[in-house]
Parts: sequence; structure tokens; C-alpha cells
Amino acid sequence: MITKEKEKNNKFYPNISNKLSKIVGKNNIISDIEGLYAYSFDCAHIPFNKEYPRIVVFPETTKDVSDILRLANKYKIPVIARGAGTNHAGGCAPVKGGIIIHFSKMNKILDINSMNLTCRVQPGVVVGELQKEVKKSGLFFPPDPSNLAVSTIGGGIALSSGGPRAFKYGTFKDYVLDLEVVLADGTIMRTGAQTAKNVTGYNLTQLFTGSEGTLGIVTEALLKLIPSPEYSNVLMAYFNTISDAVDAVSSIINSHLVPSVVDLLDKKTLQTIESFYPTGLLTDKEAALLIEVDGDKSSIIIQQNKIIELCKKYNSVHIECAENEIQKEKIWTARRSSFGACAQLAPNVITEDVVVPRSKISEMASGILSISNKYNLTALVMGHIGDGNIHPNFALDLRDIVQKSNFEKAKTELFELAVKLGGTLSGEHGIGCQKSVYLPIAVDRTALKIMSDIKKLLDPNNILNPDKMI
Amino acid sequence: MITKEKEKNNKFYPNISNKLSKIVGKNNIISDIEGLYAYSFDCAHIPFNKEYPRIVVFPETTKDVSDILRLANKYKIPVIARGAGTNHAGGCAPVKGGIIIHFSKMNKILDINSMNLTCRVQPGVVVGELQKEVKKSGLFFPPDPSNLAVSTIGGGIALSSGGPRAFKYGTFKDYVLDLEVVLADGTIMRTGAQTAKNVTGYNLTQLFTGSEGTLGIVTEALLKLIPSPEYSNVLMAYFNTISDAVDAVSSIINSHLVPSVVDLLDKKTLQTIESFYPTGLLTDKEAALLIEVDGDKSSIIIQQNKIIELCKKYNSVHIECAENEIQKEKIWTARRSSFGACAQLAPNVITEDVVVPRSKISEMASGILSISNKYNLTALVMGHIGDGNIHPNFALDLRDIVQKSNFEKAKTELFELAVKLGGTLSGEHGIGCQKSVYLPIAVDRTALKIMSDIKKLLDPNNILNPDKMI
Repeated sequence: MITKEKEKNNKFYPNISNKLSKIVGKNNIISDIEGLYAYSFDCAHIPFNKEYPRIVVFPETTKDVSDILRLANKYKIPVIARGAGTNHAGGCAPVKGGIIIHFSKMNKILDINSMNLTCRVQPGVVVGELQKEVKKSGLFFPPDPSNLAVSTIGGGIALSSGGPRAFKYGTFKDYVLDLEVVLADGTIMRTGAQTAKNVTGYNLTQLFTGSEGTLGIVTEALLKLIPSPEYSNVLMAYFNTISDAVDAVSSIINSHLVPSVVDLLDKKTLQTIESFYPTGLLTDKEAALLIEVDGDKSSIIIQQNKIIELCKKYNSVHIECAENEIQKEKIWTARRSSFGACAQLAPNVITEDVVVPRSKISEMASGILSISNKYNLTALVMGHIGDGNIHPNFALDLRDIVQKSNFEKAKTELFELAVKLGGTLSGEHGIGCQKSVYLPIAVDRTALKIMSDIKKLLDPNNILNPDKMI
Repeated sequence: MITKEKEKNNKFYPNISNKLSKIVGKNNIISDIEGLYAYSFDCAHIPFNKEYPRIVVFPETTKDVSDILRLANKYKIPVIARGAGTNHAGGCAPVKGGIIIHFSKMNKILDINSMNLTCRVQPGVVVGELQKEVKKSGLFFPPDPSNLAVSTIGGGIALSSGGPRAFKYGTFKDYVLDLEVVLADGTIMRTGAQTAKNVTGYNLTQLFTGSEGTLGIVTEALLKLIPSPEYSNVLMAYFNTISDAVDAVSSIINSHLVPSVVDLLDKKTLQTIESFYPTGLLTDKEAALLIEVDGDKSSIIIQQNKIIELCKKYNSVHIECAENEIQKEKIWTARRSSFGACAQLAPNVITEDVVVPRSKISEMASGILSISNKYNLTALVMGHIGDGNIHPNFALDLRDIVQKSNFEKAKTELFELAVKLGGTLSGEHGIGCQKSVYLPIAVDRTALKIMSDIKKLLDPNNILNPDKMI
């Protein structure tokens, strides 16, 4: 593998490599095969990586990015933007080789404006770091992908990432006001304005948001902030059936309540977390709801009391409501450990991301379990039930050819079921190179044609993250 | 005028008219000149209407709309979608004649789903009617354009309309999940999915939302609803300077508070409302803030007490906090009367719609007053200060050539000032035919080119609302 890659790189050099070196400087380049290996995959486990990038560059300015793209466009070289590589759908995988633009050196918070409730950031800023910084000014950037300790703003914008709080607060797209984007030919443009509202022309900001770096590369973003809620509290309610849990959620929503988080964990998830990171979760119940409320102190008490009452009404068999910061942290730690715990079960964990109308959650959850049983796979069902967004975690060994093939079949059935229930392929993880083949089952044929035409319009040489999404 | 229009119509008939009649039926057509006059303008006062539509059709189904567009596209006839015509920027004006598609017969609420927190509606549904209907299920559709008693969902989607509540709840675009759109060639497509979250492909839903019927015609929409807040209350705080009012708003935002409405009314607005619709407004103060809070009962009291304290801290000279439904209604009635009161001052009222970063509100407000003084115009300054969105109401007589010319100059300076302050041309009224000439001062040149290319891609014969926006 390495020899083959070395040969490919010899062809690439010195034509392009020297030119890139002049743009970003020699210290901002990785070009040794061992180094490139690390950028040949992302969190999506593209099995036995087929391609390495030819070079990884670390631009420091928008002009650097513009110069890189101008060069790449001239020589028709693929360009993949990358932050922390936490993508679950292969969005950062260099499936056609090419240049990876790594944003770790464009990671500055340029401005936090508490009067305008905005911040201006570079794409390499880590989401969790931004949240900490704005909190110092009493402000709040709600999107909370579970990997927020490492994942970056650029990735969040590329995928319109969400997280548990999306039920109340929405996803990245709801917080992107304006973008600086470098187009395929190196042109630098602004998509919007510095204002909270804007209907001046077509909404290009939202066209680029969630486009996975296939239409342009984001080099700066103006994000909306909101005043930080004063307090929050969390509770865990256990049920003997998933459908009781779903009914409890419906009744909560129908009672004027808007919790900040409404997550579901199934029995297998509870058991797996508890066996690797014991915090006292009940492991004999079929489902648990993790519900967080926020607001002022009195409002929190009112909300949680109502929620407890409704969970009981819908047959909750046990409710644990945090009474202090330690108990809050204990519940959240258990929830956050789910992926790590799952990773202990098998060499690979594949986190899927289907979304259905909320009313179809029970059907989707039981469908996932029957599909995984049919194909002899281990699936842990969890997700943001408030949004109808389920993340089944499949624990498997991708080296096992039978298991791998079974998983591919299961995945197809999973997507078909989601679409049949009125849902779609991804709520917050994106399409990448792993789901693009399924787009025709979920997206209107004419809409797909328009997406493809827009891609051709903005990237005629198909250099921007090729073979992804569209 | 009428003779000239009749001649034009004679050319139009019978080629197209008979064919349209076969599509929608004879009873769903207006083709007499007197009838067409009523559709030759909208709320934007296109001065002395230059064009009549050639025909107005009232489709009853999506298929009707598709057939109309297929025909129009074949013969390259302009098509303008229209709801209540409350547009302030000439978005519904038939500036090139053509066919008006009127949606008053596609006005059904097809579904309200309290489990999924969605509703499915036709474009002719009146916004206020939808709000009333969903309220019966304890649900809330927040966008509240001031003309919501007549304005329609189709118009709201076309412009991404907002209203006072946008500060907390956003505008139409934040509530559009999925659209059925008929394209220029008659193809019917879906833009998204029936889910709360969706990153499956480019965000075509948001590309069509706010595109003023220039890319396709919306025939059905899946809208997001939220649980209705249990209670709300409103207060009015008076200040001796606009900048004190602005400072009070900043301090409110910086104190973790998110009122549902933060509107500003200047002295001239207060005086005008009070003189025509007296409710006891103080008319000697430079500015008033109308602030609404919502949530549960205890939270409302906490919020309003904090707001009162902060307004006092920033020199509010008088605060009137509603203590019952009658007082609430009195304050809201005064606010809602502003446009009507202004209309008593002169034959025409032109409501402008500029938006700036919140921190530039004082500068924008005083700029509006100096520009209107310079051109000897009467301007009443009000707006959604929480969003940085100001609506100066100009009371004038458009038949007066000097005044009309002065207004045009003032408008240009107004837009230039908004852009200079980091703002833009429209927050919620759109561009229509009245502002498109100003787009180059506010929108990035490359972004404009992309918008124009997307328009050509989706509407190669330029039949969809031509000469609007782009």
C-alpha cells in the first residue's frame, strides 16, 4: 500500500507540492506517506482506506485558501476541507486523493459581540471552546455535537451538526448568519449580512451550510448567539417499553413544555454503558429518557415537576431527578459515555443517523432491532427522540467479511424503513461518501437534479470534495 | 390607460386565455380590464401602475398550477404568484403583464399534527387563521407579520416574513421544513423531508424560501410548530432619548432575558398613534419600548420585574406594565395602530424595512431622521429593535413630483446608510421590483452572480416573477 502511494505521490510532486509550499510555507505542509496515512480516513471507518491524500496543507489566512483553490482548480486536483475529522459519513475521506486543507491554524475567535449577540470565528475553532468563551459574556452557542470537545465550527457548518439540545435550540444552520466562502476558482465571497434578519437575495448562507465543502470552503462565519439560560436541570425516567417512553414525550410536548433535551436510551445501551462506566443506571428497563430543562430557577422546578408527573402517568417505573451539580454530572456522564462504552463491545462502532417524524419513533426503534436481529448484528438504539432523530450504534468487526456484508444489507434496510416512515437518511451527520448512493431513495428526483446542477454551476471541474453528498 | 390595456389583452386572447380556461375552469378566471386593475399593484404603491396582468387565474390543485406553468413556459408568459398582495416591495406587481396565479382557492389547512409539531398547509391559508387553528391544539406558529389577519402563508414563505416576535422566535424561514414547489416548466417537486432535522442534500427548502416566487411556485408547505407558551405579558417603557432605550435593550439581553417582543416607537410615531387612536400614550417622550415576555406564570413575573428594573436603570421615565387582559390589549392595539395612524397623515404611507446590527440602532434611527429632515419628508421611526430591524414609515403624497423625487433620494441614502453600518436592505419585506436596483450596494458581487446563475438554471425563460429581486 505504502509503495503504491509513494509512486502516486512521486507523480504529484514536484509540480504542485512546491507551489503549495510557496503559498502556505514549508512548515504548513505534511507530505510524508506516514503523515498522510493519518488523513486518509475520518470517524466513518472507510474500510481499509483506499486512498491517501497527496498532501495536507495548513493555511493561515483566507488568501492562502484562495491561492490553494486557484491552483487546485487550474490543475483539477481534488480539495477536501477538514477540521477534527469527527465526521461519521466519510465527508473528510480523500476518496480521490488530492489536497486536504486542514483548518487547525485558522482557529481564532475573531470577535464576540454581546450587543449584537454574534460571534465571528474561523472554521478551525473547536465548538466546545467557543461555548466556553461566549459563556464568559453570559452568552450561549447551543449546537452541541457529542464530540464538541474536539469537533470544529467548520465541520459543524459543513454538516449542520446538531446534538441533544437541537430539540429546543435547533442545529448549526439556525445559528449561521453570514459566511465568508472561497469558491472553487479561488474567488472569496460573502453569502449574507451581519444582521439577525436578512431577505436581501437568495439564501446562499443556507445553501453553503450543510453542503459538506462541495460548493465552496468556509473561511469565516458570523454566528448567532443567544443569552445563556440561567439554570438547567436533568432527569432520567425509566420505562418498561419504548412506546411508553414515546407516549410520555408526546404528552410533555402537548403540555406546553419545551425541554432543552429529550434523549432516548434503549436497554442494550443502558446495559453497555453501565457495564463499562458504572454510574448506577437501571439495566433491566427497556428504555430511559434523559430530559433536560433550562430557564430561570422557578421555571425549572415547575417544568421538572410537570415532566415527572407526565412520565409517571405514562408508566415510568423509576425517575431520577438530579438534586445537585454532582447528580447532574453523573447523569450526563452516563449519557456521554454511550459511544465509548459501545466501542468496548467490538473493534468498530458505526453510528448511524436516521430521522423520522416524531410519531414514527417507536416503529423506527423496533424496526432497527428487528433488522439487526435479522442480520445477527449488535445494535444499541439511542437518539434525540424529541427530533425524531435516532442514532443506532452498530458494534461490529469490519474485518469479518460476513459481518461487513450483513451490515451493508442492514444499513440499506434501515434507510428504506426510515424513508418509508416519512423520514430521511440523515438529521445531523451528513451524507459524505457513505450515504450518497442512497440519496435517490430519499430525495425527490428533480431536487437531486437541481442539486447536481448547482454543484456543476459552482464547481465545474468537480474539485471540491468530489464524490461526496451529490 | 384602459384602452391600451384592452388592446394588449386582445393580443393575449384567445390563444392563451382559452387554454387557461380549460385548466382552471371559466369560473376561476378574471379577464375583464376593470377586474385586472385590482391586481395591477400591491401594498407597495408602484406609482401609477404601469402594467396590468393579462389574466388572473385561481387554481384549485397543484396539478392546475403545474399545467398553468407548463403553458406559460411554452409561450414565455410571465407568471406572478399572489396571496393577499400585502407585499411592501412590489413583489406581486405584474411589471411585465402576464398571468397572476391567485391562491385564494388553495387555502386549506391539510393537517395539524401535534405529535410531530407540524402542519401541512396550502399557500392561500391566512397566517392569522393558521395561528388560531393550531392554538386549539395548544400549538403555536410564531411568525406574526403585522398584516397577519389577511396575509397568507405563501407570501410569508416567499418573503421569509417576520414580525415583532422574530426576536425570540425567528421568521418564516425558521418554520419551513419542506415545500412542494412547481418549477417553471411545470415539474412538481419536494424540497425536503417531513422531519424536524434533515441534512440529506443541499438545503433547497431554504433556497426557495424567501425567493419571492422567482425560482418556483410553492403549492404546499410543511411547517414547524412549537408548544404554545402558557402566558404572556406586555409593558411599555418610555425614554427621553432613543439611545437610552437602546441601552436598556442591551442590558436586558445581557441579563439572560429573551423577551418575545422588543419593539421601538419614536416620538413622532407615539404622537401620530395617540392623535388618531387615543389610548393614553405619552406623546412628549422621545422613545418607547414595547416589550412582551412569555412563558409560565412565575417566569413571566420574574422576567418583567427584571426588565422594569433595567429600564429604570437606563433612565426610563415612565413604565406601564399590563396588569390584566384589557391593559395588554390596550398596549397592543396602540402598537398595531401605527400603520393605520400614519396613513391618516398623507395619501400614501411607504413602510421601509432596513436592518442593521443591533449595536447600530441608535445611529440608524438618528440617520433616518436627518435624512428625512434633509428632504423635507415626514418619517415615523419604529421597528423590531431586538432584531436591529427598523421600519421607517414615510407619510407622503406620491402625486407630488417634488416629494416623490425627494423620497427616492432619501431612500437611496437610507439604504446606503444601512449598508455602511453593516446592515442590509431588507429584514422581512423582501426586494420585489422596488429594491432590486439597490442589491449591488448590499450584496457581494460574486454572490449576486451566483444568484443570477441559479435563477437562469431554474427559470431559463425568465417567466417566474420577472424583474423581481434578482
